[in-house]
Amino acid sequence: MGTMEENTDITSLFDKLKKGDRFALARAITLIESEREDHKATAADLIELCLPHSGKSRRVGISGSPGAGKSTFIEALGMELINSGRKVAVLSIDPTSKVSKGSILGDKTRMDELSRHESAFVRPTAAGDFQGGVGGRTREAILLCEAAGYDDILIETVGVGQSETLVSEMVDCFTLVLIPGAGDDLQSIKRGIVELADIFVINKADGNNLKAARITKASYHQTMGLLGQKESGWPGKTVLISALHKEGIGDFVTLLREYFSFIRESAYLERRRTLQNFTWFETAGQNTLKNALFQHPDINNNYKTLRKAVQEGKLSVSKAIHEFELCLKEKL
Amino acid sequence: MGTMEENTDITSLFDKLKKGDRFALARAITLIESEREDHKATAADLIELCLPHSGKSRRVGISGSPGAGKSTFIEALGMELINSGRKVAVLSIDPTSKVSKGSILGDKTRMDELSRHESAFVRPTAAGDFQGGVGGRTREAILLCEAAGYDDILIETVGVGQSETLVSEMVDCFTLVLIPGAGDDLQSIKRGIVELADIFVINKADGNNLKAARITKASYHQTMGLLGQKESGWPGKTVLISALHKEGIGDFVTLLREYFSFIRESAYLERRRTLQNFTWFETAGQNTLKNALFQHPDINNNYKTLRKAVQEGKLSVSKAIHEFELCLKEKL
Repeated sequence: MGTMEENTDITSLFDKLKKGDRFALARAITLIESEREDHKATAADLIELCLPHSGKSRRVGISGSPGAGKSTFIEALGMELINSGRKVAVLSIDPTSKVSKGSILGDKTRMDELSRHESAFVRPTAAGDFQGGVGGRTREAILLCEAAGYDDILIETVGVGQSETLVSEMVDCFTLVLIPGAGDDLQSIKRGIVELADIFVINKADGNNLKAARITKASYHQTMGLLGQKESGWPGKTVLISALHKEGIGDFVTLLREYFSFIRESAYLERRRTLQNFTWFETAGQNTLKNALFQHPDINNNYKTLRKAVQEGKLSVSKAIHEFELCLKEKL
Repeated sequence: MGTMEENTDITSLFDKLKKGDRFALARAITLIESEREDHKATAADLIELCLPHSGKSRRVGISGSPGAGKSTFIEALGMELINSGRKVAVLSIDPTSKVSKGSILGDKTRMDELSRHESAFVRPTAAGDFQGGVGGRTREAILLCEAAGYDDILIETVGVGQSETLVSEMVDCFTLVLIPGAGDDLQSIKRGIVELADIFVINKADGNNLKAARITKASYHQTMGLLGQKESGWPGKTVLISALHKEGIGDFVTLLREYFSFIRESAYLERRRTLQNFTWFETAGQNTLKNALFQHPDINNNYKTLRKAVQEGKLSVSKAIHEFELCLKEKL
């Protein structure tokens, strides 16, 4: 494909995407996920076109342990938002698997009602290594969705582990979905995740669970107090819902609106996004640098030899770093 | 100074240090803190000599908000340990200030009794940038103290902010000193610090404070439950003390012994140290790499120009990283 054709192609893809064409959006995301060198350049151009039309959505991260009912919640939330006239995109991240061609977990029937609605766009994205660093593709997918006119971008973590931190670094609001019973189920939430949350959603707060749900709510309320104030100044809130019975979804939407008013007024939203962008560039820049240098065979070999010696306890870290410094001085 | 003399010097310094000479130890720490190129090489050799004699101490981090009574606690703890026949070193980290020649905060009268005792060594260390990365000097100071025969190394954070994470990455046991009253005082503990702690020390648990201290203890106990299990498998413990009245210090010492038995038996101690060493090398290695490359004028200029464009919103992160990649390919 020649450069002229490529350009025409990108422009036409962008035009369709801009009009809200969901197929064009899907194709665009596939393009930014490609590892091919020529695709990378095209993808960078496409994102550049989208950039002026991005940034207006509410970026909401939704995480929680397996079985907490995230998908049911997102489906109910998505429909509620759509019914109030908004367009909703759902992006899922699974850092443990390389997503190919938009299928994740082979689980195509998730969010059935939502994914068929014309005001919704549901899509898994790969979080793996990329020129933009871990999570780079999802960050770019957000920009594309925004250019395509989506008002709310819900970013769901499917995996466990690092994905929560990753997501919290690309959203405006990080939501943790929990189920009643403060004990066992919470064990699968990694330490440090709780403190990332702006809103705790306690799901399955219905029938016999209601009392336990209220206790869980109180526990998290207290924990938030102990963890100290968040940088945003937002106190952190908990909400009881039943995704299955579609109860409390409206309360969550109200809370979301409150949160965004709060962080817009205090200019924290702008600050957070600027910082996220900056961090993204710095992290990705350093990864790029590292990758480039480690393709230099002498430097790479020297580093590996030193690392091995450190691991085997044959060399102190200080000495190893000193020798690495001398090697770099010689080679660069 | 010629190489021969330098070598003799280092050997004699090491011999004195090895015999437990506190002046030699102080001189050695000053040497590793030096920024001079020739000193760096000598320091690396010295650490290499110390390495086989290091690793046998208990490395204990002690942190907490200003006013929690860390110094009083450390003095009481240090004396208790010394009276049981152990040698105690106290290293203080202040990441916010560059320490020069061993003075920190101009506060020489802190830990008066302890610092005059012949079985103790009290010394501030600089945490600033170093070949070994942030905290590199303190890590090296630990190795020197161990070679000098100290059984317990207490690492105190004087500053706030990143220092707690930093300390937790170089110790076997991270201790957080708190005061009763779960509210206001805790606000100055940054989010994320609580989860680093292996032991919570609730100080000033005396007189009228005793009831409040018990409530604080219960709160932290619950919070630990909510935060989920630590990697070590150690459940996290709280202890009530009064550093001023020297009450509960023995309980803390017992808890410390329990903790070390626990992590030695499970081999977590070894695993934690191996991982810390590895992380130290990786972080320091990447910093070294970054520093070396940013001394390359073309690469440095390109990076700065791109970063400025990103910050001003003129360029997307993706495009900037792509251009940086192309620049590196050309220059290396």
